[in-house]
Amino acid sequence: MTTITTDAFLRPDGRRTDELRPVTITRNWLDAGEGSVLVEFGNTKVLCVASFTPGVPRWKKGSGQGWVTAEYAMLPRATSTRSDRESVKGRVGGRTHEISRLIGRSLRAVVDVAALGENTLVLDCDVLQADGGTRTAAITGAWVALADAIAWGQRQGAIKGTKPVLLDSVAAVSVGIVDGVPMLDLPYVEDVRAGTDMNVVVTGKGLFVEVQGTAEQAPFDRRELDTLLELALGGTAELTRQQELALATDPASRP
Amino acid sequence: MTTITTDAFLRPDGRRTDELRPVTITRNWLDAGEGSVLVEFGNTKVLCVASFTPGVPRWKKGSGQGWVTAEYAMLPRATSTRSDRESVKGRVGGRTHEISRLIGRSLRAVVDVAALGENTLVLDCDVLQADGGTRTAAITGAWVALADAIAWGQRQGAIKGTKPVLLDSVAAVSVGIVDGVPMLDLPYVEDVRAGTDMNVVVTGKGLFVEVQGTAEQAPFDRRELDTLLELALGGTAELTRQQELALATDPASRP
Amino acid sequence: MTTITTDAFLRPDGRRTDELRPVTITRNWLDAGEGSVLVEFGNTKVLCVASFTPGVPRWKKGSGQGWVTAEYAMLPRATSTRSDRESVKGRVGGRTHEISRLIGRSLRAVVDVAALGENTLVLDCDVLQADGGTRTAAITGAWVALADAIAWGQRQGAIKGTKPVLLDSVAAVSVGIVDGVPMLDLPYVEDVRAGTDMNVVVTGKGLFVEVQGTAEQAPFDRRELDTLLELALGGTAELTRQQELALATDPASRP
Amino acid sequence: MTTITTDAFLRPDGRRTDELRPVTITRNWLDAGEGSVLVEFGNTKVLCVASFTPGVPRWKKGSGQGWVTAEYAMLPRATSTRSDRESVKGRVGGRTHEISRLIGRSLRAVVDVAALGENTLVLDCDVLQADGGTRTAAITGAWVALADAIAWGQRQGAIKGTKPVLLDSVAAVSVGIVDGVPMLDLPYVEDVRAGTDMNVVVTGKGLFVEVQGTAEQAPFDRRELDTLLELALGGTAELTRQQELALATDPASRP
Amino acid sequence: MTTITTDAFLRPDGRRTDELRPVTITRNWLDAGEGSVLVEFGNTKVLCVASFTPGVPRWKKGSGQGWVTAEYAMLPRATSTRSDRESVKGRVGGRTHEISRLIGRSLRAVVDVAALGENTLVLDCDVLQADGGTRTAAITGAWVALADAIAWGQRQGAIKGTKPVLLDSVAAVSVGIVDGVPMLDLPYVEDVRAGTDMNVVVTGKGLFVEVQGTAEQAPFDRRELDTLLELALGGTAELTRQQELALATDPASRP
Amino acid sequence: MTTITTDAFLRPDGRRTDELRPVTITRNWLDAGEGSVLVEFGNTKVLCVASFTPGVPRWKKGSGQGWVTAEYAMLPRATSTRSDRESVKGRVGGRTHEISRLIGRSLRAVVDVAALGENTLVLDCDVLQADGGTRTAAITGAWVALADAIAWGQRQGAIKGTKPVLLDSVAAVSVGIVDGVPMLDLPYVEDVRAGTDMNVVVTGKGLFVEVQGTAEQAPFDRRELDTLLELALGGTAELTRQQELALATDPASRP
Repeated sequence: MTTITTDAFLRPDGRRTDELRPVTITRNWLDAGEGSVLVEFGNTKVLCVASFTPGVPRWKKGSGQGWVTAEYAMLPRATSTRSDRESVKGRVGGRTHEISRLIGRSLRAVVDVAALGENTLVLDCDVLQADGGTRTAAITGAWVALADAIAWGQRQGAIKGTKPVLLDSVAAVSVGIVDGVPMLDLPYVEDVRAGTDMNVVVTGKGLFVEVQGTAEQAPFDRRELDTLLELALGGTAELTRQQELALATDPASRP
Repeated sequence: MTTITTDAFLRPDGRRTDELRPVTITRNWLDAGEGSVLVEFGNTKVLCVASFTPGVPRWKKGSGQGWVTAEYAMLPRATSTRSDRESVKGRVGGRTHEISRLIGRSLRAVVDVAALGENTLVLDCDVLQADGGTRTAAITGAWVALADAIAWGQRQGAIKGTKPVLLDSVAAVSVGIVDGVPMLDLPYVEDVRAGTDMNVVVTGKGLFVEVQGTAEQAPFDRRELDTLLELALGGTAELTRQQELALATDPASRP
Repeated sequence: MTTITTDAFLRPDGRRTDELRPVTITRNWLDAGEGSVLVEFGNTKVLCVASFTPGVPRWKKGSGQGWVTAEYAMLPRATSTRSDRESVKGRVGGRTHEISRLIGRSLRAVVDVAALGENTLVLDCDVLQADGGTRTAAITGAWVALADAIAWGQRQGAIKGTKPVLLDSVAAVSVGIVDGVPMLDLPYVEDVRAGTDMNVVVTGKGLFVEVQGTAEQAPFDRRELDTLLELALGGTAELTRQQELALATDPASRP
Repeated sequence: MTTITTDAFLRPDGRRTDELRPVTITRNWLDAGEGSVLVEFGNTKVLCVASFTPGVPRWKKGSGQGWVTAEYAMLPRATSTRSDRESVKGRVGGRTHEISRLIGRSLRAVVDVAALGENTLVLDCDVLQADGGTRTAAITGAWVALADAIAWGQRQGAIKGTKPVLLDSVAAVSVGIVDGVPMLDLPYVEDVRAGTDMNVVVTGKGLFVEVQGTAEQAPFDRRELDTLLELALGGTAELTRQQELALATDPASRP
Repeated sequence: MTTITTDAFLRPDGRRTDELRPVTITRNWLDAGEGSVLVEFGNTKVLCVASFTPGVPRWKKGSGQGWVTAEYAMLPRATSTRSDRESVKGRVGGRTHEISRLIGRSLRAVVDVAALGENTLVLDCDVLQADGGTRTAAITGAWVALADAIAWGQRQGAIKGTKPVLLDSVAAVSVGIVDGVPMLDLPYVEDVRAGTDMNVVVTGKGLFVEVQGTAEQAPFDRRELDTLLELALGGTAELTRQQELALATDPASRP
Repeated sequence: MTTITTDAFLRPDGRRTDELRPVTITRNWLDAGEGSVLVEFGNTKVLCVASFTPGVPRWKKGSGQGWVTAEYAMLPRATSTRSDRESVKGRVGGRTHEISRLIGRSLRAVVDVAALGENTLVLDCDVLQADGGTRTAAITGAWVALADAIAWGQRQGAIKGTKPVLLDSVAAVSVGIVDGVPMLDLPYVEDVRAGTDMNVVVTGKGLFVEVQGTAEQAPFDRRELDTLLELALGGTAELTRQQELALATDPASRP
């Protein structure tokens, strides 16, 4: 229905327009954390650590439901020039807030909070190196860390019952229109030139959780939107496969 | 192509699913402000004031380009229960940041910053009363205030040249799926029950500037997404007409 | 005893020195808020909203007494040039603090906190447009919103007993000495030229609650002080009449 | 005209109602500071240090005028129970702001900023021990420190010209109505029982600079106000004499 | 074993290299505070006030143990040029944090928190005048205020039992290498020229509690370190004697 | 002279008391950063990234000298339980401040800022995993990143002249007394049981830069201090060797 340009010469790294960068998902990257994953989308590296705590924030007490939230941050020199630390500036910036909220919502969309019971999961996503797509890598990696932490909670007996807590998996990818050409998984050099830029969060079953398209430079039409969504669904299907693969390796060594 | 349910009994206020709430756009609502608009989407009331200042922030100096930005906020009792002031809490919340950034990006998408020259426009969007759709009302009203302020800058000679500064108009509307039914322009009572909720920003020519769909409760499929986009395009077309009407009334009285 | 100059040509708007600007008090200006009043002193417009909450802050618990407090703020473009938001600056300024405290004290002076019972009333006074006298307009309007909110609390049964909660009404006005001439109710253009500037808060019975006179430019003598107090008592008597008038209109429509 | 009660048994410390507590003004209390004064009103002890800096804040540059400002603060255990430090809380409270602004305005009322030239004077008033009347003691002591710092600036040649910089002296005192009786210079035990409490700032010539009367508990009538003003004028006349005496001692030893 | 240079001409104030500045410890300097001490090391003056409160912070509740902590701060004009207040800057600086923590740790090293019982002691150390060695003077004076406050708690019966709460005394002194010569108790003029600078905290029995040596300009060898430690032990022995002397005077007058 | 206990059974990981944990220093761990090192002391992992910027802070401009500073931070789940982010709390804690300052001072002690010229080096030390000794690992790794960044600045011509910028290397290690036994390089389990804990920073030539010994639980005598210093000198000598080894591998690949 849509034409996806495949000319490899279009992209600095020689990828097809519908091709992801190399993806690696390393579980148990740290000793601490009930789940800890280093996720890499090309040169983008995000450390995703899940912390499991019995109990919930005050406003959820007695609800019988759990709580899942996320915090995203960048190390000061994750990028090509150094940024000031938000702790030193004394306030969390708008972009950081926005991405933290996006990751939290995306994960909650596939969690049955009643089955989780009154337990809290905090997902810390710290960008060690940034080369575009940090929020999508964070969602993709955080879900794996979340899965490990839920399994840990079940082994520990902190999560009672046999109802599955995870309703589905969730992964995310960026797409954008660069020089008029829709493309999948933009690194920084492509991202800065993109007229339109979209982050798409999709469940393992292929349903949309978030669609966030932005055209600061060039408003887009319905046909372009359709192509972008198609590229995104292709990318997230592949990411879902990578998540499954990572979880299929030996179970986490944590007791 | 898509079926839009029209049963009026579905909605508490008796609207069709593809029908906007009553919209009013009042220009020159305040004496101060180079543009000042009170926009109402049903019971939602947002005061949008444009401030025009010669000069640009340091990082834009010498670029020959102007700057357009926005700040969104809610009065503490805009909602049915009182919220603490962000000034008192000492920090701007994530939601506020997110919406301010959205409004700014939406407006910049239709401004030729080179034609604007080194001038700054700040759009303050303060919600006096909130009943759903505050960010979309804010974008729709802010664009009218922006148009007034740009005209003021041209009359004053602060904006030089004859190149049009505004490339197009921009308006926004919310859509969502409530109890499985896609609907346009959700008031608060519908919004809290929506499984999926989408804000769509569209130019006067019908191109997308932002598509922000979120499914915290129920991931949505491609067909539902299509219906929502269609509803949104219908709503923004009508809002564009209302913006034109408001601007077609007597010119602003400010010298 | 004192001579009040009546030459109309003295003042830019042609008022006598002992004459108030046109005053309007609009009740139920918003749907939310147990009392909500838009008060206008000439071009100064302040939105005063009373929020009624059962219960009191921790340090009042078990005292059997209620609590009344106020928060004052200005929209960024309430004035002729835009000010930065205090939420963005991350701190509430000294002037804002000072006025919020003044409003709260003024209202508490006429409330029987024991008759109120353990309930809290927060009065939000947001200046939509500023042309001098914002704090005095805020006190005058806030008292009407407070009266509506107390009546609401009584109708709801949240305030028990039949003892009157309001001991009296309270209103406020500014006076000042401009070019040597004492004057009532100064708009911005007069205020900036005033050598002495005084805000006076007076009960319906004509007793003083606050007298705040400041002479940054020209210290004043006892005779000038007497004239200012006389002007103020005249002004607040008229404001008291306007408050009564506003409350005498049909009862608030809120259930 | 007014009756001043003189029954010594009325007051815990046996003073007449129109009598000040013992006042001491010690100059050069510190080595640092172009003026440094320890002022005591009974048990209230405030350290007032004047810092002289050539140059003015950005917004005064090129005006030919100087700037005088003040900062008031309390040590955490100046009072009978410890308060948290404002530096630790991360924000300056409303009361602190209010008093700092009052001191600054009071001093500026007697300074010819043109004669001062583009120099800045900061008056730091730190309360070491608080027993009522800290703000009035601070104003009274700060004026002496200011006078020393101005003399220093003149000796150093930083202040040019021969026009006097100080137009007059300024002193302040509290008055209040305790159990229906108007009284001068309230210590803490009287202050907490006062229905009305007023701070009055008066120049050496007997003109008013600030009149700040507050009736949180009992609104006051015109006759009571007159009595309070009379008491205050008596008190500040005595304080003016003490300031003159302190300055008449040997000149400061600082070169 | 080590050679201590004794040539008086080396030091601006004519002291021997192993000689302290004149030390004075004045108890009950304020009326408030369960212990309040003005300590002077030459021109350095620090006010140390101990506040005793029954109860402990939440994280110590039920432990049967007390808590001792300290807060250090400088008045803005304690030094030769004025510094901005940390309350105004909205954050406590690194140096302030560091010294507060040091004082707290030093005092806790000689307190039996079990014998103290669930009571809290806060030591406020405010530098009125700074001429080098403010942190060491603060520790030395704070211990005396602490001793007074503990005695007060015992007299009041708030501290139960007969087990001694204070295991030992604690005092501190600075040492440094100036132009190659190790010296005791550096005033500001020597401190700025010191290549190495060390603060040493020692108990009455001569045991080390803290050794903090820093060589920003000239790394030091083992022999120099030995000389510095020897000087410090001599100085703290003398300070211990002064503390004993101060406590041996008539008991505090507070009931 | 001192007896170093060598019984391997003393320590949970079987080390001798004078033995370091396994140390690894990985250069060029990130693409960004003019120097980027992952340093590991056993399970402690710290990422040290050096950012080189031409120019210096305002207060150093025109001095001809460069500036070296450091910022230390911990990821929220670097430890066995999650800590709140300092960015979210809105302030940098005392411990963080203290360690950042220590790292900066330690590095500056071996840099010739005149030879560096007006260039700035910021060393970001982010703890990915914490198991004791994070500050000493940070110093040790940061020096290697600093050396790489200085070499980069020389290759780029940003650092002029041929004078060596680095006067020496610098490394750090912790020592402590656990159950009465002095030990080198404490992991978390030993650290919490240590009565005395010391961090020692030593240059490649064996001179002390910092000696920070703290006895919150058990004051120590001179003999114990000597043993600790001896252990520390042994440890830092080995760390110096590891730093040399790391730098002796192929030159950094960055151009």
